[in-house]
Amino acid sequence: MSVSELKIPVNQNILEMEYAVRGPIPIRAAELRKQGKQTIPCNIGNPQALGQDPIAFYRQVLSLLEDPSRIERERGINRLMSQDPEAQAAIGEAGSISGYVLDLAEKILSTHGANVGAYSESNGLFFVREAVANFINERDGFDPGGPLSADPERIFLTDGASEGARHILQLLITGPGDGIMVPIPQYPLYSATIRACDGTQVNYYPDEETGWVFDRGILEESLETAKKDGITVKAIVVINPGNPTGAILDRKTIDEVIDFAGDNGIVVIADEVYQENVYGAEFVSFAKALGDRDVPLVSFHSVSKGFYGECGHRGGYMELRNPPTAAGTDLSFRDIIFKQASVALCSNLVGQLMVYLMVSPPPEGSEPYALYVQERDAILQELEDKATMLREGFKQMDSVECFGRTGAMYLFPRLGKLPEGTNDFDYCMALLEETGLTTVNGAGFGQKEGTHHLRIAFLPPKEMIEEVLPRWIQFHNEYVNR
Amino acid sequence: MSVSELKIPVNQNILEMEYAVRGPIPIRAAELRKQGKQTIPCNIGNPQALGQDPIAFYRQVLSLLEDPSRIERERGINRLMSQDPEAQAAIGEAGSISGYVLDLAEKILSTHGANVGAYSESNGLFFVREAVANFINERDGFDPGGPLSADPERIFLTDGASEGARHILQLLITGPGDGIMVPIPQYPLYSATIRACDGTQVNYYPDEETGWVFDRGILEESLETAKKDGITVKAIVVINPGNPTGAILDRKTIDEVIDFAGDNGIVVIADEVYQENVYGAEFVSFAKALGDRDVPLVSFHSVSKGFYGECGHRGGYMELRNPPTAAGTDLSFRDIIFKQASVALCSNLVGQLMVYLMVSPPPEGSEPYALYVQERDAILQELEDKATMLREGFKQMDSVECFGRTGAMYLFPRLGKLPEGTNDFDYCMALLEETGLTTVNGAGFGQKEGTHHLRIAFLPPKEMIEEVLPRWIQFHNEYVNR
Repeated sequence: MSVSELKIPVNQNILEMEYAVRGPIPIRAAELRKQGKQTIPCNIGNPQALGQDPIAFYRQVLSLLEDPSRIERERGINRLMSQDPEAQAAIGEAGSISGYVLDLAEKILSTHGANVGAYSESNGLFFVREAVANFINERDGFDPGGPLSADPERIFLTDGASEGARHILQLLITGPGDGIMVPIPQYPLYSATIRACDGTQVNYYPDEETGWVFDRGILEESLETAKKDGITVKAIVVINPGNPTGAILDRKTIDEVIDFAGDNGIVVIADEVYQENVYGAEFVSFAKALGDRDVPLVSFHSVSKGFYGECGHRGGYMELRNPPTAAGTDLSFRDIIFKQASVALCSNLVGQLMVYLMVSPPPEGSEPYALYVQERDAILQELEDKATMLREGFKQMDSVECFGRTGAMYLFPRLGKLPEGTNDFDYCMALLEETGLTTVNGAGFGQKEGTHHLRIAFLPPKEMIEEVLPRWIQFHNEYVNR
Repeated sequence: MSVSELKIPVNQNILEMEYAVRGPIPIRAAELRKQGKQTIPCNIGNPQALGQDPIAFYRQVLSLLEDPSRIERERGINRLMSQDPEAQAAIGEAGSISGYVLDLAEKILSTHGANVGAYSESNGLFFVREAVANFINERDGFDPGGPLSADPERIFLTDGASEGARHILQLLITGPGDGIMVPIPQYPLYSATIRACDGTQVNYYPDEETGWVFDRGILEESLETAKKDGITVKAIVVINPGNPTGAILDRKTIDEVIDFAGDNGIVVIADEVYQENVYGAEFVSFAKALGDRDVPLVSFHSVSKGFYGECGHRGGYMELRNPPTAAGTDLSFRDIIFKQASVALCSNLVGQLMVYLMVSPPPEGSEPYALYVQERDAILQELEDKATMLREGFKQMDSVECFGRTGAMYLFPRLGKLPEGTNDFDYCMALLEETGLTTVNGAGFGQKEGTHHLRIAFLPPKEMIEEVLPRWIQFHNEYVNR
């Protein structure tokens, strides 16, 4: 097929927007795969692509929701199996679908609108938003119905967390004079979306060597610089646990962010999709820390991360607290975001129902409970173990340091030594060619001037890490000393 | 929960953007439902919300893809049932999952990346894009591998068709001086997205009384008017079959659009999501009519419409032909759209796999074939019958006329008579309050000045139409003559 000879002027923001997580390095990896070379996709937090098994409970329920006629059929099979040992043998090890799962699927399907084949309301199925509200109340200790209780009408179900970020940034940004504060390094969803919306990215710099800690002084400094440049800061993005750094914020830092935002009349955008990936540390949500302070807060969660790892289902939610009003109108951000969500009709229904399952785990004592807990704990333990294996490897790499404790699904080691004239992009490309390991170079996350890093998702199976790590160490020590 | 006292300046384009399909009338309907009143949601093409059953084949396969462990189990059940009549009785009427379906699910799952829990490549799973290319080649009679053969690398899998429209419009529009031609009336996805992207909507007017026909003269007129206003037209949107009109374009009109676009150096955006909803008429795709002419074409298809009706799965695709180059660069639109798609990571995987099933129906002679054909034909026949019932009703309504033949899922009758000082919004609101029928008024689609219409999706079950139609006729004749 031909390319047209037509040359058409296009939106410069789209042209210049960058998204390194799926940029030149992963594109090169795809080429290598086509040539038959094995690659290890650590450029992205995509656990099931690296062999992580899904939680059985989720999939059993979703499978029934896709084909509701199966519910009665499975009940028949269960009756037969309980009566007939031959049937049990024939049906095999896969065993039966528990009564709890069958009842749950039936209950979901009897709820208004719960049909994977139908559009839902623009903000998502009501009963799912209600379940999300209950989850937040329970997580954060809010009294249901009390003044801090989560409100299903201020929850939006979204295709992953990215969609929510797009809505709020598109609404806030009126032009290049509007700035959004982002931590450096940051997840490039934010830089790309700010750029696509014609806004200005305002960087703030957590301190690497103290474990990516920051305080109000660092935020004020960044705000002052922006003001001097004539930029009006509209919001601050915080990613907790951090991506790419894995840093986990303590209560004091979160409080400082909220007070900073309140004092300066800006919105807090809290990306909390890694809230389950804390490996023993405490996760404090922005909603909990916010309490009754009158600061607008938008927070995200997703089915893609945690121990769920259901990236392909593209489920997520966004919660608004203290939504502001659009200047010159009496319209709340909630109502405007509802309209934005309407244009895309609704997020995918299977993803919405996966959000329901994420926030409604099987209760203690129910049939699926024991396996669910076992799978959950095993996944989280294995993630932590794999991070530790990689960290041990870094110690054998010349001038590599990895600061802070383990969080999220990533390590972000600093490359203290590189051959003259090369940068971390060159390093990651060479690493890919040499070992198949696909990572993202630090510049893709907007690292601090003069530093070099890479981000690696600690997701490959242990045996794969054991196999590739020595090759990486060897590559590294040769490359940086060549 | 409180609303913040903060007032924040927001993006005016988002503030002013309108989306009537989910605007004030459906919002009022939702309120009525909460009060316990029955409403009939004909404001949107959402067949399964009105009782249309899904195609069994699709759901059987998707159900297995959600829970792959079931495949071996179902084979065990099939063996048991074939040997043991008691087992057959116990498992019940729902019967067995055919070997064809089990083999297909197994084949899909053995394909690289086909895992509903994992992100795919940004443009979607390769094997699905390949299947879409085969579908286009077969539909349009292109020689696979020949010069017109569809190219999987120029196909993007998207969350419904809306996402593709957003990407191309966002890329094309550089500011208010850029115009996009849209038919009036039009589907408000286009007006809303053009507005969100800060572009200018340039209307062209198919002729209602001849069945919404248009010709090159009408297009040139619209282009000339835009030029006089200083607008650079970048693209023309064509919806075929039409939404909201149902109009089906003939080959001559399509050829004229393509020549018009070619002569003026603009992109054709062809929304073909209703290509199966032609009720005996011939559907000619823009790709087929394009042939080897060097005109950039972007076309959309979706799993939400046709006889599939799988709206909730949010699956769709976009095909590019003759992608232009971005001025001042050597970047093809294909590569820039790939980057845009990357920022949202990928469309949902179940939707992608539903696209695969849409373009890969069970072949003649396979076990699911007979039922598939029966379900497909019954759905399309019933849609046509229901449109006819409504058209018959219009004849009993004072001064209502509905032009053109039946296409898509909508009728767009003209209200020739309304009480002084009222408009079609007032009419649709009153119709909702009186009968529960939820429609969208013509102004929501940008109808021609001085005319009044409504759009109704002809989706409710026949018994429901039989029940509500007399009440609508009575309401109508009283309302317009009050």
